[in-house]
Amino acid sequence: MSHSPHIVVIGGGFAGIECVKALRGANARITLIDRQNHHLFQPLLYQVATAALSATSIAAPIREVFAKRKDVSVLMDEVRSIHPEMRAVNLASGRRIEADYIVLAAGLRSVYFGNDEWETHAPSLKSISDAIEIRRKFVSAFEAAELLDDDADRSRQLTFVVIGAGPTGVEMAGAFAELSRKTLRDEYRRFDTSDARVILIEGQDRVLPTYSPGSSEQAKRDLEELGVEVMLNTLVEDMDDMAVTLSDGNRVATSTIVWAAGVAGESIGSTLNSERTKGGKIVVSDDLSVPDHPNIFVAGDIAHVIDPKSNAPVPGVAPAAIQMGRFVGRAIKRELNATRNNRPSPDRSAFVYRDKGSLATIGRNRAVAELAGRRFSGYPAFLLWAIVHIYFLIGYRNRIMTMLQWFWQYVHYDRSARIIPTKSYEFRDKE
Amino acid sequence: MSHSPHIVVIGGGFAGIECVKALRGANARITLIDRQNHHLFQPLLYQVATAALSATSIAAPIREVFAKRKDVSVLMDEVRSIHPEMRAVNLASGRRIEADYIVLAAGLRSVYFGNDEWETHAPSLKSISDAIEIRRKFVSAFEAAELLDDDADRSRQLTFVVIGAGPTGVEMAGAFAELSRKTLRDEYRRFDTSDARVILIEGQDRVLPTYSPGSSEQAKRDLEELGVEVMLNTLVEDMDDMAVTLSDGNRVATSTIVWAAGVAGESIGSTLNSERTKGGKIVVSDDLSVPDHPNIFVAGDIAHVIDPKSNAPVPGVAPAAIQMGRFVGRAIKRELNATRNNRPSPDRSAFVYRDKGSLATIGRNRAVAELAGRRFSGYPAFLLWAIVHIYFLIGYRNRIMTMLQWFWQYVHYDRSARIIPTKSYEFRDKE
Repeated sequence: MSHSPHIVVIGGGFAGIECVKALRGANARITLIDRQNHHLFQPLLYQVATAALSATSIAAPIREVFAKRKDVSVLMDEVRSIHPEMRAVNLASGRRIEADYIVLAAGLRSVYFGNDEWETHAPSLKSISDAIEIRRKFVSAFEAAELLDDDADRSRQLTFVVIGAGPTGVEMAGAFAELSRKTLRDEYRRFDTSDARVILIEGQDRVLPTYSPGSSEQAKRDLEELGVEVMLNTLVEDMDDMAVTLSDGNRVATSTIVWAAGVAGESIGSTLNSERTKGGKIVVSDDLSVPDHPNIFVAGDIAHVIDPKSNAPVPGVAPAAIQMGRFVGRAIKRELNATRNNRPSPDRSAFVYRDKGSLATIGRNRAVAELAGRRFSGYPAFLLWAIVHIYFLIGYRNRIMTMLQWFWQYVHYDRSARIIPTKSYEFRDKE
Repeated sequence: MSHSPHIVVIGGGFAGIECVKALRGANARITLIDRQNHHLFQPLLYQVATAALSATSIAAPIREVFAKRKDVSVLMDEVRSIHPEMRAVNLASGRRIEADYIVLAAGLRSVYFGNDEWETHAPSLKSISDAIEIRRKFVSAFEAAELLDDDADRSRQLTFVVIGAGPTGVEMAGAFAELSRKTLRDEYRRFDTSDARVILIEGQDRVLPTYSPGSSEQAKRDLEELGVEVMLNTLVEDMDDMAVTLSDGNRVATSTIVWAAGVAGESIGSTLNSERTKGGKIVVSDDLSVPDHPNIFVAGDIAHVIDPKSNAPVPGVAPAAIQMGRFVGRAIKRELNATRNNRPSPDRSAFVYRDKGSLATIGRNRAVAELAGRRFSGYPAFLLWAIVHIYFLIGYRNRIMTMLQWFWQYVHYDRSARIIPTKSYEFRDKE
């Protein structure tokens, strides 16, 4: 071959990282592009938002992950468009990059179902910045409550609304309740922190709708024992700075709203001009390539592919993204090897999702797990959840730091990451 | 006594925290007011700015420190004015608080010597937010350099200017140089990270001007061995988005400027209407009270008091602040006890500063120390520096986390805290 083949991977999430790892030794040049400079361990992001973990424990600079891989070049840039016919991408920095293979692993973004203005009131949880903003709002509400004399004002400050009872919403609501009732218990002098209300709102008739009904029941019981008010079959009609209006007509005065209700494929997917689902996911062939574009693959949450075993779409969870990324990386490597040896490309196999089960934690010693058709909860599920999450965290340093912080918290009920960073200049020039 | 006496402490830095600790068992109501919700271990803040430590490792929620002290009430609020005659303070939230004793421990702020507009170009290092902003600028400059084709543009991105060669400036410049030459070495593909320039600018004729000339020499040698360009007898004439103009006429194109040159007493001190130094510090009596206002004390960096042993002002360092805070707390406690037992107040003693020595670190195994008249450097000074800083860090959790991160870094040259947080919404609505 006259030149070493070039592979562009868009997105440094689970799928993108695993794809590049699987391409080790493929004798290719690989360019990994991400808007952020770090891989983020999304499943633990809610723990940053709830002050259990420091942000740096669950993020790894992408460059550091591939520092030793001289075949990998990392660009912190944003892909503005993909040109499938030309196999090229245009970047926000103005550069245009051509490739032999493109792997789109851009993931999902939060959507507000046509109410984009809600975003200013109800941050969602997608980035480190989002998590720190939610933490700031939550901790600041308690600080504000300590300064207030009016009961109604104080109870508004101490009302926290989480919208959407999927795993993120459930984990967030449980952690808010634990923070209020346990961690902060001794720290305020003018009110009882257990008077704080945590309200979890879900449009469907159960929490964790993608889990089995038994797990949903267990999770709801756990949440309620922690003090969370669970409102099912309830939609949000409107929201503003002061309150959320619900479909049952109630108006809930609140200081802090978190949006965990809707996601859709990142908008870059639209530039492929191929079939997409209503949720903006890209409908791919069974080998995860884009129909009519065999050298363009889609992996991770933004890919829509039907699992032949369950006849349902492969779910948008980390293990599926990891499997897809690895699958695509291996497929490309096989083809490059064949070409290099002047053999015909092997037939591509179909992606098969291996469901490893589902895990969600609600609080200390409270979790639900579904593994190999078995359902369990309580301490065993909680412990399994912790072990699995440590195992999948990237980087030994992050694993050790996270274990240490969890251990400390488990023993002391302590969540020391609850600092509110305020810029110096906000205090300036008062003289 | 008809009511339990009320003590207001302004500032949750070293002096404020130590004062409240010393007041344990004084049978008083104590209100501790700070604009931030956390105590910050300032001596290690530059390590957050240079990605060695996570922000949460060097900050402790003030409430958590005093959770068990039911006599202490913590308010996250800003004092707008102090009324010495009425012994009252007015808060930004609108409240007015009266007290039997007021302890002002508000610390210092950065000043730009009449060039306030420089602050937008050259952040100083006073808060967690400042540190994260400096870290963002530094890491982003390397990311930008990887995207640039023009050599001049790239070398501007890779030029870092630190203004002021006191301990903070020296430690910062050394850490920037180590980051560029060691930590980031393998991670960029389009340039050699050791081409990055780190320039340290100092108006006086040596670095660390408050140290002995021998230590200054040693620190300069260490800095230069690490690759820092040290410019002495040099002032900054002007700066903008693109460059710094120096007093020797040179214009240095740079992406990142850090201000470590000037500090002054927090402006709240002016509302006391008592004598202040040019630097805005409050001139206090030898018992640290404000002349003519025996029940108003000043402690920490904002206090100006002459040390009778050296005949020089007590320096603005953490051990001095700790000693002053403790001294004031004990003095107040003694007086309250006397009053409670219907004894006359004991005569107040004069504050005596016990100089524990000076320590500054320049890089791995490089530090200077001055202890009990002896000067040493290299590995012993480095080790001592690490031990002392761990010892003074508040909270066991912070100590363990910091030790662990240091150990990891020492073994691996790794600084994993170099994530750039970007908000999700900055990437929105490109569709």
